[in-house]
Amino acid sequence: MKISHFSPGLFVLLLTISTFAVSSRAETGYDAWLRYEKIDDASIQRDYDKSLPAVVVTLGRTEVAQSAQNELIRGVRGMLGRTLRIETALPDENAVLLGTFDEIKKAVPTFNAPADLKEDGFYLKTVSVAGHRVLIITAPNEHGVLYGTFTLLRKMSLQEPISMLDEMENPYAPVRIINQWDNPNGTIERGYAGRSIFWEDGHVVKDLKRARDYARLLASLGINGCSINNVNADPHAIDSEHVAELARVAEAFRPWGVKLFVCINFGSPKSIGGLDTFDPLDPRVIDFWNKKVDAIYAAIPDFGGFIMKADSEGELGPSAYGRTHADAANVVGRPLKAHSGIVFYRGFVYNHHADWRNLKLDRARAAYDNFHQLDGKFDDNVIIQIKNGPIDFQVREPASPLFGGLEKTAMAIELQITQEYLGQQRHLCFEVPMWKETLDFDLHARGANTPVKALVAGKVFGQPTGGIAGVANVGLDTNWLGHPLAMANLYGFGRLAWNPDLSSEQIAREWTKLTFGHDPQVVRTISDMQLDSWRTYENYTGPLGVGGLTDIIEVHYGPGIKSSEGNGWGQWHRGDTHGIGMDRTVATGTGYTAQYHPPVSDRYESLKTCPDELVLFFHHLPYDYVLHSGKTLIQHVYDSHYEGVEQVQKFVEQWESLKGKVDEQRYNETLALLEYQVGHAMEWRDAVCQWFFKMSGIPDQYHRVNNDPNRIEAESMKLDGYEIFDVKPWETASGGKAIRIVSADGHGSASFNYTGKPGWFDLAVQYYDQTNGVSQYKLFVAGQKVDQWLADDLLPSRNVPSLPNGHTSTRHTVHGIALRPNDEIRIDTIADGGEKAPIDYVEIEPASH
Amino acid sequence: MKISHFSPGLFVLLLTISTFAVSSRAETGYDAWLRYEKIDDASIQRDYDKSLPAVVVTLGRTEVAQSAQNELIRGVRGMLGRTLRIETALPDENAVLLGTFDEIKKAVPTFNAPADLKEDGFYLKTVSVAGHRVLIITAPNEHGVLYGTFTLLRKMSLQEPISMLDEMENPYAPVRIINQWDNPNGTIERGYAGRSIFWEDGHVVKDLKRARDYARLLASLGINGCSINNVNADPHAIDSEHVAELARVAEAFRPWGVKLFVCINFGSPKSIGGLDTFDPLDPRVIDFWNKKVDAIYAAIPDFGGFIMKADSEGELGPSAYGRTHADAANVVGRPLKAHSGIVFYRGFVYNHHADWRNLKLDRARAAYDNFHQLDGKFDDNVIIQIKNGPIDFQVREPASPLFGGLEKTAMAIELQITQEYLGQQRHLCFEVPMWKETLDFDLHARGANTPVKALVAGKVFGQPTGGIAGVANVGLDTNWLGHPLAMANLYGFGRLAWNPDLSSEQIAREWTKLTFGHDPQVVRTISDMQLDSWRTYENYTGPLGVGGLTDIIEVHYGPGIKSSEGNGWGQWHRGDTHGIGMDRTVATGTGYTAQYHPPVSDRYESLKTCPDELVLFFHHLPYDYVLHSGKTLIQHVYDSHYEGVEQVQKFVEQWESLKGKVDEQRYNETLALLEYQVGHAMEWRDAVCQWFFKMSGIPDQYHRVNNDPNRIEAESMKLDGYEIFDVKPWETASGGKAIRIVSADGHGSASFNYTGKPGWFDLAVQYYDQTNGVSQYKLFVAGQKVDQWLADDLLPSRNVPSLPNGHTSTRHTVHGIALRPNDEIRIDTIADGGEKAPIDYVEIEPASH
Repeated sequence: MKISHFSPGLFVLLLTISTFAVSSRAETGYDAWLRYEKIDDASIQRDYDKSLPAVVVTLGRTEVAQSAQNELIRGVRGMLGRTLRIETALPDENAVLLGTFDEIKKAVPTFNAPADLKEDGFYLKTVSVAGHRVLIITAPNEHGVLYGTFTLLRKMSLQEPISMLDEMENPYAPVRIINQWDNPNGTIERGYAGRSIFWEDGHVVKDLKRARDYARLLASLGINGCSINNVNADPHAIDSEHVAELARVAEAFRPWGVKLFVCINFGSPKSIGGLDTFDPLDPRVIDFWNKKVDAIYAAIPDFGGFIMKADSEGELGPSAYGRTHADAANVVGRPLKAHSGIVFYRGFVYNHHADWRNLKLDRARAAYDNFHQLDGKFDDNVIIQIKNGPIDFQVREPASPLFGGLEKTAMAIELQITQEYLGQQRHLCFEVPMWKETLDFDLHARGANTPVKALVAGKVFGQPTGGIAGVANVGLDTNWLGHPLAMANLYGFGRLAWNPDLSSEQIAREWTKLTFGHDPQVVRTISDMQLDSWRTYENYTGPLGVGGLTDIIEVHYGPGIKSSEGNGWGQWHRGDTHGIGMDRTVATGTGYTAQYHPPVSDRYESLKTCPDELVLFFHHLPYDYVLHSGKTLIQHVYDSHYEGVEQVQKFVEQWESLKGKVDEQRYNETLALLEYQVGHAMEWRDAVCQWFFKMSGIPDQYHRVNNDPNRIEAESMKLDGYEIFDVKPWETASGGKAIRIVSADGHGSASFNYTGKPGWFDLAVQYYDQTNGVSQYKLFVAGQKVDQWLADDLLPSRNVPSLPNGHTSTRHTVHGIALRPNDEIRIDTIADGGEKAPIDYVEIEPASH
Repeated sequence: MKISHFSPGLFVLLLTISTFAVSSRAETGYDAWLRYEKIDDASIQRDYDKSLPAVVVTLGRTEVAQSAQNELIRGVRGMLGRTLRIETALPDENAVLLGTFDEIKKAVPTFNAPADLKEDGFYLKTVSVAGHRVLIITAPNEHGVLYGTFTLLRKMSLQEPISMLDEMENPYAPVRIINQWDNPNGTIERGYAGRSIFWEDGHVVKDLKRARDYARLLASLGINGCSINNVNADPHAIDSEHVAELARVAEAFRPWGVKLFVCINFGSPKSIGGLDTFDPLDPRVIDFWNKKVDAIYAAIPDFGGFIMKADSEGELGPSAYGRTHADAANVVGRPLKAHSGIVFYRGFVYNHHADWRNLKLDRARAAYDNFHQLDGKFDDNVIIQIKNGPIDFQVREPASPLFGGLEKTAMAIELQITQEYLGQQRHLCFEVPMWKETLDFDLHARGANTPVKALVAGKVFGQPTGGIAGVANVGLDTNWLGHPLAMANLYGFGRLAWNPDLSSEQIAREWTKLTFGHDPQVVRTISDMQLDSWRTYENYTGPLGVGGLTDIIEVHYGPGIKSSEGNGWGQWHRGDTHGIGMDRTVATGTGYTAQYHPPVSDRYESLKTCPDELVLFFHHLPYDYVLHSGKTLIQHVYDSHYEGVEQVQKFVEQWESLKGKVDEQRYNETLALLEYQVGHAMEWRDAVCQWFFKMSGIPDQYHRVNNDPNRIEAESMKLDGYEIFDVKPWETASGGKAIRIVSADGHGSASFNYTGKPGWFDLAVQYYDQTNGVSQYKLFVAGQKVDQWLADDLLPSRNVPSLPNGHTSTRHTVHGIALRPNDEIRIDTIADGGEKAPIDYVEIEPASH
């Protein structure tokens, strides 16, 4: 048989499309925003049939050029059901022509390349050649041709006209990179969607299909780099055995123009280099890095470079030898430079053994304090990668002042796509509006109009490079990020990395159309939900800039309000019976506000001008302090938490309105997650409100907090085989207590008599669903079993002791139960393993319809 | 923990509904017409919320009564999201009250049971008791209460009003039974949906969940009996070991009021009884059957009885001892009588070694000839089970004359739900309109108005019992029958068994609403497709009553026109170069028409009155014979086959119009099946048309037959590694020939150059997809690979040699290919096992959009 001149990629693709494989057509989320769904609208289809030529000519011969051509064929085949003809030269008919400026110029001498296109930018232009219409996709380099091709396909997916094109796009910044925090053992630090697509058992996985498909997704957004291991790096990731494995990943990325990056451990010269030092100024260390870099480039000629976390949270760093971050960054950066490689040096450096009793200490100061003084000391292929805010991906932080504090040093802003502190992909939280606030925030670093996006792109102070980095942490879950709606964050990140001027609304609508189709109700509803979701999450977790009020020690998920206090981690909110908030003013606090340029520093310094939404980030205030809104601080806390829960309840209703308009699988998956979110949002609300009430002693003016007439505490029920215990922290149980099984046979029963009026009700059981067991619950009403379920969820996300607390609190609601006075309501349970069928309370509410 | 008084069934049900199990909510077809989908229409929901009481009271304590109550709770919970309260006595509020007449009368002394309700009938009546509205579901027996409950739930699923009910239903006939032709080894005779739900490895399966759920489906239609083994019965099915296993099946059926029946082998006294005879008049044989029946009833007190196929197709029978069918039926029937058991004796008795050269012989006569003379000799618990037509489930047959030939013998009509000769659940074929034609056919057995349905129900001659039997053959496939639309046949069978006066249209619409919801376009489109499908199947297979033209020897699926001829099976159509059709007239033929009463006999005897659609069943005619329609016979054959294919192509378009309106899984499964059906319908059309053309020598007046200008025969292509061979039978390949790989390395290539005009085309490859290998096919156009696929289908359905023929012919269409003159079109293949990548032809047609 003759060998086809096609790439294996196309072979796989066509196999998928053409075989009798029903399952491959299902909407699993795997195809993300590249579904290329058949265009059903007959008039649009006719229009494209007419305006799109039948022939594609690709002038480049590289893998990236072939990817562009294959993608165009794939997309058109999906959307129009037609396979473009491949020709090697312009035919005597209309054609799509793909090539770099130089290539196009040779084929179409009359073509004039626009002068203002930058690296990776592209130009879509319809021209007439010998009486035929030629749709040119061109760019200064082959990556731009690929990005232009994806852009044409996106236009078609969005059903925009393509008949006469004349448009140009440049990326906002050269650096558009993804970080994956995958560990060589296959786990993912802060990953919530299954195990690593790159690693298993200490090695790169054999089948790199997922890696290839991931690179394609990234390329479709213009992302050109990806690191694949945890910033808390295993030094062995770059030993000689693993370099050969990394080369395989680079090979999987290469057709999509995605460069491979690797996180390194600064102690490598010692741990894998056989040296007795990793002092960056030691010649042997310099020699180690030179040789290591050369070895990597010998295996991976287009290697992107390193990412380094040093002197942070226990990672080794230059301080061990009294050296600076600049010494550290430069010693690894210099050998990279010869290969056009770069090093991302993380600005996330702080003392995590700080004295919490010292009111002048402030972790928020750390990045600026550490790096501002070194401005100018870094080589020009060193990029300081700075988190959006000064703490650590909290639900609301001000922009890091360091973006305005480096004028001679290249920067990248680090955004977190994976929802570490934002609900871990169990909660809906569309991060684009949050990122936009930071990117658009004017730091007045050189007068007005110096938004963060311009600073990191080097547009204000003229640094040679810079841009945007995102921590994605996709996993082996079929839909990449676990929650069917979470991929909007990866999409939004990529779109903003390419063009941070896009609005949140546009991104949400684009993503929804590409992911769920064009039904106007679907587009409007899902976009609305996404756009409301971050502020909703903020509402029921931690408002006014106080931080997430999350358990910060390990899991970063459920409420754990005092976990921030009394330790060296520095995420202090200083909440006590008198008030709450970090005083970061120059006048009376840590002086952090001075890290900003005026007038920003003044705005934050003064209570008169500090915006409500960040007031507790900058100021310590009494609970009865009156906000600009006119509400007291405490009432705002109460109100926002009740509002937040109502908003999540509305998400469920909004989603339910899409039944039959969204495919069944994604509909059901999303609905189940939203229903879970309601229950966990209630846990959040109640934990925060009862904690604030206890601290402040100030009651809710609407009498909601600690006043739940429809709630029956488990500890007040008639118990059999159960004991009452104190939940820790206390605020993560209603009333601080719950019940757990203590009987020898593991069976328990808790009951009470209904005393209300007859009617239809929903019965909610708030219980704790731990990882270390699958307890059984059965609910009886007047002797009739009305429901049963298993506590088979895996909470929390990390491999830490799974206990009854804010991470595991879960709500199970049984709808439509007819209650009559004196009905016995009884829960019969069976414990399993370490999970003792714990119950917090039962809530009885009028039936929801 | 206390023991709940609930049945295990409810436990399983509630687990399914309430756990976080996304997959269980998917539309897999498992729930069939009992989906109890949440009612989305708010006004209807409000209406039901108002009209349906919150309480259910079930007066009966039997398993069947509990099933009724559980089903009501399940259905209401599904549709309204409410769990009815169970009370043990009428409460001081509105209630649904379930009970038999006697039970209701005790609870509501004012209640008057209607006098005209028969066994299994039911009464739905809203009454006022002590100022409360009570919805009574009552019946003479508990089965009727169950059927009434299912009827109430069906009304709600159909969104009909239920606020003030006053309606009564009686079943049309007492016998409403399903036959499953499952073999103890787990295979199913003529089953097309996976292995047996009852048997595996010679034993009843351990997990009888599927059996329980099947009984529930049957009960929902009022079916009250089910046999679970092949009529070609293994005698060991009733040995003592297996009786204990059968008892487990009976236990699974019992809560749903479905009685277990078993097929017996008439030779059992010898094969498992240790006797040297099975002579029905031998006292030892009588003793054997007496003891066997007693042993079965000892294990299964509500055992239904036996089904027996004797003296047919090689099965042992009374003829071995010169005894009659009555002797045979009565010897097993008599011991059953004491337990109210019955025996179904199959009327499907014929000589399958008949002399095909004898033009006076006629298999159609056999049932009547065998049984008519015995009328009056059968005990009254013997039911003669008679296939709808005189041959064997062909696509069109006249009603069996035997229905009019037994006046003193109970009868059941045997309908075949499994699509043995009707496309084996790969083709859409809704059988209800076909069944209706037979059921409603007036045999004039005692003057006018003696339709088959009335005869078999005993309404004409007053037999004590009778009714309807259906061969269903559901299997382990999740959706029971394989094709997502095939369950309409099981539903339709059950509905007709209960009430044969229902129209096909009503049944189709009901089933569609229950199965796919209430979207008017969905209901209309699917109902239309179903209602057109039988005549469509007839059109492209065998019209004018000639029979299916199917290969009758083993598989009963694809075309095999001469397989009916030249052998003893008696499915002769007598087609040759002069004409075709069986002369069954009294005047010149087999005299079969005389088995009918006048005027039916006269109508069929005379060509003047014999309807076109059955003309070749009754008459042998020359090809140029002019039908009542004005067309010649031969042109009718051509036209109907081309029409049939066009109708299937329309099914695809109709189905595609439902995209997004039908859940993804069932949409995709059905679309793939319909696309397959188009290709196989074309195979049928071409086989039949070219065979008739060769026989008749008369060309198609529209020049379609043997004239395919867009078709390139494989045997005319440039071949590499391939040889040309004669396909058997010849008509199952275009031009009688195809190609198969002969190269040593198993690689092949077939190519030709395109000579037409440029444009967009669909390329169809007609090939043979056998069971004994998975060949690979790759299609190249001008060197560009445009598709590839695997021949991984499993054809034919039986374990016989899988060869390139009418069973395996399969079409793969590649849409939207741009062809230019002189393009080389090439298929590169790899053979696998016994499947030598055979190809029949390539067809090039203008692109379908």
